[in-house]
Amino acid sequence: MSLPDASRRSERSRRAILEATIDLVAELGYEKASIEGIARRAGVGKQTIYRWWPSKGAVVLEALNESLSAVVGFPDTGDIVEDLRVQMTGVSQLFRTELGAVYKGLIAAAQSDPALSRAHVEQLIQPAIVAFRKRLAVAHQRGELRSDIDIQAMIDMLWGALYYRLLLHVTPLETRQVDEVLKIAFEGLR
Amino acid sequence: MSLPDASRRSERSRRAILEATIDLVAELGYEKASIEGIARRAGVGKQTIYRWWPSKGAVVLEALNESLSAVVGFPDTGDIVEDLRVQMTGVSQLFRTELGAVYKGLIAAAQSDPALSRAHVEQLIQPAIVAFRKRLAVAHQRGELRSDIDIQAMIDMLWGALYYRLLLHVTPLETRQVDEVLKIAFEGLR
Repeated sequence: MSLPDASRRSERSRRAILEATIDLVAELGYEKASIEGIARRAGVGKQTIYRWWPSKGAVVLEALNESLSAVVGFPDTGDIVEDLRVQMTGVSQLFRTELGAVYKGLIAAAQSDPALSRAHVEQLIQPAIVAFRKRLAVAHQRGELRSDIDIQAMIDMLWGALYYRLLLHVTPLETRQVDEVLKIAFEGLR
Repeated sequence: MSLPDASRRSERSRRAILEATIDLVAELGYEKASIEGIARRAGVGKQTIYRWWPSKGAVVLEALNESLSAVVGFPDTGDIVEDLRVQMTGVSQLFRTELGAVYKGLIAAAQSDPALSRAHVEQLIQPAIVAFRKRLAVAHQRGELRSDIDIQAMIDMLWGALYYRLLLHVTPLETRQVDEVLKIAFEGLR
């Protein structure tokens, strides 16, 4: 399917803006990156950005979301532990790239910006949770999971373990962590 | 034991500064609270604060640490699950007070301030991890825990679940979460 010329130009600008956003925030940090700087790097006018996004937070969120949505999906190979391992390892690896640094900046900004916090939950976190719950419902039906567990608490623990390392800098993110977390979650501490 | 007058005055000023810090950061947010504002509210000179702390981050961290250190300790009743429940419920409740709001501001600031991030880990997180590991070592000896688990991954999951709710605002912190998290951790998802 080919887009009309104007749409193709728009899509090219949109992609250039999102790429420039990630680059600039990774380079300068969230606070110092500005809409002006992003426009300059993307080769577009500032007004083009403001036409599509209401704020810096909104454009950073969309830029992140495009990259993250590629890894938050859950495969279904019939083995819930392996599928969670694929998903969580993808997130953990992505957190270790420049996108992780950009994401930390967004989460930090969201602590004092309720509108950005809501947009983050609605646009990025909730769709991931919906996908997670859908995959778990299938696992439940197949008897791969106990039926008496609290799904949100399970999500808090599995993803919380990754965010804990991303944000608190106690120990670095590493693939081994995902294996150890899944072992504890599925086999239990006793 | 009675302190000499000068020490008593110092300790009184120190406490007034730490209280004023929590109040002001809870009221204005981390970014807008200033050393000047804290000094004014505590009834001390700005120089008194700078004599004891190098930065706003340092004084906020000490103020938080005094309140948090009361709840990060681990009781030893002989039952590891109950002792974890007491500790985590204490943290969860504290996260829901104004101290939680102050702590979010500090974690946000630490994302773009490596010195503050290091101080946070060294002064607040690491001592809590040392206490956690000490309590777990006793549980290990008593056979209350499997011997083949990765302790850091366990900490990531248990505390990560609390920080996930504190920082990402997907679902509110609630005491029930602690019960569900411990159930999953100890009984396993299978």
